[in-house]
Amino acid sequence: MILEKINSPEDIKVLSMEQLKILSDEVRTTLLSKLSNHGGHIGPNLGMVEMTVALHYVFQSPADKIVYDVSHQSYTHKMLTGRKDAFLNPDHYEDVTGYTNPEESPHDFFNIGHTSTSVSLACGLAKGRDLTGGTENIIAIIGDGSLSGGEAYEGLNNLAEAGTGTIVIVNDNDMSIAENHGGLYQNLRALRESEGKCECNFFKALGFDYRFVKDGHDLKELIDVFQEVKDTTKPVVVHIHTIKGKGFAPAENDKEQWHWNFPFEMPSGQSKMHFGDGESYEDLTAEYLLKKMKEDEKVVVISSGTPGVIGFHKARRDEAGKQFVDVGIAEEHAVALASGISKRGGTPVYGVVSSFLQRTYDQVSQDLCINNNPVTFLVFGGSVFGMSDVTHLGLFDIAMLGNIPNLVYLSPTCKEEYFAMLKWSMTQREHPVAIRVPANGVISTGIEDTTDYSSLNKYQVTRTGKDVVVIAAGSFYQMGQQIAEQVDGTLINPKFVSGIDEELLKGLEKDYKLVIVLEDGIIEGGYGQKIASFLGTYDIKVKNYGIRKSFPDCYVVEELLKENGISVEQVVEDIRSLVKQKR
Amino acid sequence: MILEKINSPEDIKVLSMEQLKILSDEVRTTLLSKLSNHGGHIGPNLGMVEMTVALHYVFQSPADKIVYDVSHQSYTHKMLTGRKDAFLNPDHYEDVTGYTNPEESPHDFFNIGHTSTSVSLACGLAKGRDLTGGTENIIAIIGDGSLSGGEAYEGLNNLAEAGTGTIVIVNDNDMSIAENHGGLYQNLRALRESEGKCECNFFKALGFDYRFVKDGHDLKELIDVFQEVKDTTKPVVVHIHTIKGKGFAPAENDKEQWHWNFPFEMPSGQSKMHFGDGESYEDLTAEYLLKKMKEDEKVVVISSGTPGVIGFHKARRDEAGKQFVDVGIAEEHAVALASGISKRGGTPVYGVVSSFLQRTYDQVSQDLCINNNPVTFLVFGGSVFGMSDVTHLGLFDIAMLGNIPNLVYLSPTCKEEYFAMLKWSMTQREHPVAIRVPANGVISTGIEDTTDYSSLNKYQVTRTGKDVVVIAAGSFYQMGQQIAEQVDGTLINPKFVSGIDEELLKGLEKDYKLVIVLEDGIIEGGYGQKIASFLGTYDIKVKNYGIRKSFPDCYVVEELLKENGISVEQVVEDIRSLVKQKR
Repeated sequence: MILEKINSPEDIKVLSMEQLKILSDEVRTTLLSKLSNHGGHIGPNLGMVEMTVALHYVFQSPADKIVYDVSHQSYTHKMLTGRKDAFLNPDHYEDVTGYTNPEESPHDFFNIGHTSTSVSLACGLAKGRDLTGGTENIIAIIGDGSLSGGEAYEGLNNLAEAGTGTIVIVNDNDMSIAENHGGLYQNLRALRESEGKCECNFFKALGFDYRFVKDGHDLKELIDVFQEVKDTTKPVVVHIHTIKGKGFAPAENDKEQWHWNFPFEMPSGQSKMHFGDGESYEDLTAEYLLKKMKEDEKVVVISSGTPGVIGFHKARRDEAGKQFVDVGIAEEHAVALASGISKRGGTPVYGVVSSFLQRTYDQVSQDLCINNNPVTFLVFGGSVFGMSDVTHLGLFDIAMLGNIPNLVYLSPTCKEEYFAMLKWSMTQREHPVAIRVPANGVISTGIEDTTDYSSLNKYQVTRTGKDVVVIAAGSFYQMGQQIAEQVDGTLINPKFVSGIDEELLKGLEKDYKLVIVLEDGIIEGGYGQKIASFLGTYDIKVKNYGIRKSFPDCYVVEELLKENGISVEQVVEDIRSLVKQKR
Repeated sequence: MILEKINSPEDIKVLSMEQLKILSDEVRTTLLSKLSNHGGHIGPNLGMVEMTVALHYVFQSPADKIVYDVSHQSYTHKMLTGRKDAFLNPDHYEDVTGYTNPEESPHDFFNIGHTSTSVSLACGLAKGRDLTGGTENIIAIIGDGSLSGGEAYEGLNNLAEAGTGTIVIVNDNDMSIAENHGGLYQNLRALRESEGKCECNFFKALGFDYRFVKDGHDLKELIDVFQEVKDTTKPVVVHIHTIKGKGFAPAENDKEQWHWNFPFEMPSGQSKMHFGDGESYEDLTAEYLLKKMKEDEKVVVISSGTPGVIGFHKARRDEAGKQFVDVGIAEEHAVALASGISKRGGTPVYGVVSSFLQRTYDQVSQDLCINNNPVTFLVFGGSVFGMSDVTHLGLFDIAMLGNIPNLVYLSPTCKEEYFAMLKWSMTQREHPVAIRVPANGVISTGIEDTTDYSSLNKYQVTRTGKDVVVIAAGSFYQMGQQIAEQVDGTLINPKFVSGIDEELLKGLEKDYKLVIVLEDGIIEGGYGQKIASFLGTYDIKVKNYGIRKSFPDCYVVEELLKENGISVEQVVEDIRSLVKQKR
């Protein structure tokens, strides 16, 4: 096996074309072997095999610097840069993360996981190189899907003007996670169909030199074009047509399903996971929204390139028709669009992952909240129970959204509350509302939620006890329940994480010694600190629990919680010790 | 005077071409009369006179909806839609804000002040129209400068695909605030030079229909093209060449200086303001950075379309050469670029206005802070003493930056501290650092600051007293000083607003009854709440002062502070009452 002898890109440069072909096949087989047992990003990596081999054959990594956009397609790169054991040997599967990572290897330059950043980061590396008299190649690799993001455009626009030698590889597999959306994609199609020769060319319009590669799995063609652009003194786009999922029939046939997947059988692709018949918020939400759409033509659901997050797989998108809009990977636009729809009388619901919502801080503040238009956000994965990669953490959304005026941020603890909140949000016309979809499974109480959510910031007392008050929101509520029972304390479900119930809080010092707040996210900037601040002049102690401001990576939930003092045992112990103290 | 009889756009439609011409001249004279007495956005409004008259002649506002990007060019629109008195009558100058404002008029649809949002908002209005069976025209007006922002591109990309009737007017005056930056602008130039006929066309590449107007001050040409595109069923770009500052020689000749200006003499343009010889942080910063650039070729200063903010007027930009980069209005890219430069060994300093920094929440978190690259941000106008327009508030940056891991946010109280912090930040290689440039004038203590800022989160005790501790950062420090003196309290200059000095805070309960925190920004999510949370289990009271989470508009500083309980008198009274209480 050639791959077993590849310890660095140097070992690739001595191979013949025939050996490079064999190496590529071995890489693909190895990818499928690990992915079928471990799960991961399948389509993006299978499509990048030959391109990555050709890159490391032609360029001198790490002196030459390759920046992968999103970096979920960097598995072959990892295999060829000293990390092959993490793919060949199941005992070492966890030695590498799913994204580029400078702590892993000098061949990686950034921790990356969000889209559309590679051109800007590469532009920075090029500027640093030019300031210090360097001469290396700088290469950004960006998928067609990522090109709908505004940051990518800003990067291309600035790089074209900078005019310095930089190679932008556009890996065009005609897919985002789902299908692409945006006017740009008819231009990419025209470029593919004309083999790069059509009159109107987005990249040339911005000022780039331009090369087209028809078959992104042809090593010879790839090596030729890379040798041609190597050491360029100008910004150049190399537009390469590849096939997402290349070489694995199920992935080639259903590209959306196989963008990322759980472990599966080879060669059938049959899933190894058995999820049972349990409910999921994705499906429940999508079904609820489809029903609402049929009742009201003004309801429109928005996704920014991740329709699966909100349960809108292909069949449901078709069913929704014009009442479903996928704007492509363009979160900023999604928020402004929703604000505009609302202003013109529509009822927009934007479903988005907590981590990706970060792109919209300014649009939420300016385009939406200053204008106070009624819009509903459904925030998925905002929780320690969300994604655990450092680039996809769901720990920051309360601190981000909770401090923007006019926005109402709700955190339901169960299915009944969630749908009561969603129903209220879609009928009221007073405020922009975000709902933090629970991330600890679908819990049903069987009790209808009749709360009037138009009374903002009204907390609900769900258990009455003594000495201590436990306030616990969303996915941490059930833990709060256990704690309150063990110490015979009062339990509060705050429901609102963007404001506090001043009336209720004011009265606590009379009957209690201590308030405990459990927050499913970072402590800093969260709702718990609002409570602590408000009670700062009252005669009652407050202790905030949450994750300390930090970027944990690939964490294990229980361990992360324990490190932050969050477990029923730890909190109960703290309470006993704090209640004993006299003030 | 025709203008005096214009109470709504209906009154324009009956005018002859000759009368429209006279009206345009009257509008321009009126603009100059108000602007020369009042100050404001000069160049953008003088350039939009004829276009706005033509728009209201052809379209049926407010049924037809016009969305102005940034909306600093909407003065003529205001004049023609029932608000002429706010321009004709000095007593009513303050009746209108400087931006579109739905509370002022049904002809305005959004409070807007940030760039690059109009296309997305218009796209939303169009979607709302289509969902509800409406047929009106939707028109976005965006300047060429705003086209470098990613949100504009996301909007164009989605609108082109949506394929529904929407008119995007590109008001191309070949200027941003300063000169334009980005590859796109050579395409706009080629389009202007070829009268819209050159082969590569950015807008056509995205899928738009396209019209070019050579003279954006020719009413006949404008009216013809608007009549042509009226009731379009497809997205169309109307690319109109205008002259920024049209009709006022000083503004035509120095477009950067006259983008916005203070009151001035007519017709000379001589400023009516006399600023004396006082120092400004803009100038001091620019001079310091130019010196550093000469000492070290790796220092590079970045601006995102607002070089004046950091004191880099034309002569200084020329002096800095390749060590100054204006990326255009592209804040997201600016942050990622800085991260990349730093990774390649450079020393980037990014100067930006607090309100515009909001565009970069995700890039600060992901592209920069996860990667922990040493970069310096200089945040201008982060303060109640910053801009008071609701769309440009400087109240949110502590809550935004202070809760992002790895970032060190420093808030100096005087010139000596500011430059000590800047010097430290540019030499250390451990963290990304942001510095909140003081906004209450240049205060010099004359005492060298020898603080070692690499000891993070070390507060400085600057006065020792009893019972009460006053913690006051940045531009509020001098107020804290007065308060501490009046109550004979201890005074702390925290310097760091992204973390707390746990050691110091722990010791306070022993000697004090009360901690007061004065925060120059919103309370929610700020550093004061971190202190309150930390001290929640200690035997000491804490009271946080700051602006309540809200969007004040065109506020008067003293009044806003008073409403929020912030004045020496109010705080001293609170302290006396709180210290008296027994816990």
